[in-house]
Amino acid sequence: MKRVSGVLAPVITPFREDLSPDPALFVQHCQWICGQGAGLAVFGTNSEANSLATEEKLELLDQLVAAGTDPALMMPGTGACALSDSVRLSARAVSLGCAGVLMLPPFYYKAVPDEGLFAFYAEVIERVASERLQIYLYHIPPVSQVPISLALIERLASRYPDNIAGIKDSSGDWQFTQSLNALGIPDFQVFCGSESFLLQNMQAGGAGCISATANVNPAAIVTLYSSWQAPDAEQQQADLNRVRALFQEFPMISALKAATAQHSGHASWTRVRPPLTALGTDQAEALRTRLEAEGFAMPGL
Amino acid sequence: MKRVSGVLAPVITPFREDLSPDPALFVQHCQWICGQGAGLAVFGTNSEANSLATEEKLELLDQLVAAGTDPALMMPGTGACALSDSVRLSARAVSLGCAGVLMLPPFYYKAVPDEGLFAFYAEVIERVASERLQIYLYHIPPVSQVPISLALIERLASRYPDNIAGIKDSSGDWQFTQSLNALGIPDFQVFCGSESFLLQNMQAGGAGCISATANVNPAAIVTLYSSWQAPDAEQQQADLNRVRALFQEFPMISALKAATAQHSGHASWTRVRPPLTALGTDQAEALRTRLEAEGFAMPGL
Repeated sequence: MKRVSGVLAPVITPFREDLSPDPALFVQHCQWICGQGAGLAVFGTNSEANSLATEEKLELLDQLVAAGTDPALMMPGTGACALSDSVRLSARAVSLGCAGVLMLPPFYYKAVPDEGLFAFYAEVIERVASERLQIYLYHIPPVSQVPISLALIERLASRYPDNIAGIKDSSGDWQFTQSLNALGIPDFQVFCGSESFLLQNMQAGGAGCISATANVNPAAIVTLYSSWQAPDAEQQQADLNRVRALFQEFPMISALKAATAQHSGHASWTRVRPPLTALGTDQAEALRTRLEAEGFAMPGL
Repeated sequence: MKRVSGVLAPVITPFREDLSPDPALFVQHCQWICGQGAGLAVFGTNSEANSLATEEKLELLDQLVAAGTDPALMMPGTGACALSDSVRLSARAVSLGCAGVLMLPPFYYKAVPDEGLFAFYAEVIERVASERLQIYLYHIPPVSQVPISLALIERLASRYPDNIAGIKDSSGDWQFTQSLNALGIPDFQVFCGSESFLLQNMQAGGAGCISATANVNPAAIVTLYSSWQAPDAEQQQADLNRVRALFQEFPMISALKAATAQHSGHASWTRVRPPLTALGTDQAEALRTRLEAEGFAMPGL
């Protein structure tokens, strides 16, 4: 089985006025992203996945596949604090044919022993019981506050080589990403969590990136991924960094949604679930102005 | 409506061999705790509540009430990362007649604005839409990493005086507990998150405590609560502190479960869900020896 590589978007989740997920708009955005050449890491941090109930995630995933979207492009987030939730989501992803799952560690308890994290992943693997379960570990200590150590990765990959497929590193720590690429685990796919590290990651033997801004700027990120050995790769990277820096002037998730609202004409995209807050009117206008000055577009949205 | 006060246990959750919750053993332990004069803060941190799916919590709560346990003694944890989960759990608690609910803030995203946390609690209150919803905010920054500020409490209590009933302060910071007692919000019940602060909290006008060790040592904690103005209160506090310190030599949740297994004869109590790990054989024996030396007992269990 060939494992996933390339650029994936942690797809933002649209909400109706009552804050329920909007499957139609969700499918539409997913299909636009796929049309730009990127894959779908639905239910990531930028998707507000942990602000959704398990049932809500299952329903969105079912509808996405039912709409004809290719599950080979999908890596849904299935990590949860509760083993039972994580098993249920992972099993559904496998039965729908998803290429992989992106699994947060259980993140309520802090400073838990590696032994406990190993047991969590092992229980999910044993219960789903399918070699089609391709787990991408999700290392995002700034948010989860539960890091995934190199020793844990090696232990999991050694025990479950068919199921431990790779990792998304959202530590923001390039030294750690380098260490992941140097682990030497066969066919272990290392995704950086920001396109800022994409060129470096590809040069180090990485598999691609899973990045917030792939929601709004997927084509350019995919182009760098596909041409990272081209003479203009450094210039492409600099261009990507400039767009990312612009979004980073604002709270990222709300800014992605505001830009998507502005470029799609669907104002409902601006909605977030609490505890996040939407951009204020002034912020949204500032974002629009900055994006226009940059010549930013979301063609075909 | 008179609000809850006294001593409540964040009830430990028993698991069967397949790690599913064991309702019969759960009800049995809850009824033992009530028999010792304490109340039931089921689904707290020490309950591994976030290691349970929402469905599993609803099922346990239904069974607890169906078994004839008095819902006036119950303050189930209903805070969750997902608004939809928190609304569902809180609505069920209200419909079952629970005295209150203990509500974590959504804890995945860190450094969120007070505005977003206010919106979360406000949405739960508006959706449950019952003055019988008595919310006890759950401040436990060492674990949740999402603190509840004094300004947020005042804003919530001012907007929803009928629903914001109090707080559990598990910060371990006595200065903060004092500030809570000094807020001057009418009928705002301040529970400390450890019996180590019980005497001080009562002297400061607090409502009691919700503490891990109320799972194993409830009667003595209840006695101090009931007699905090007695001449021997300082001695009682010192005795409580000694027992707590003993448990704190071990990972707390696993130690509570090991002691309950040893004193009830139900070995299954030792099970925890990952990412927690049970005490090793040596640790369990060390705990047993220490408890015996202390003359510790769980009479009637």
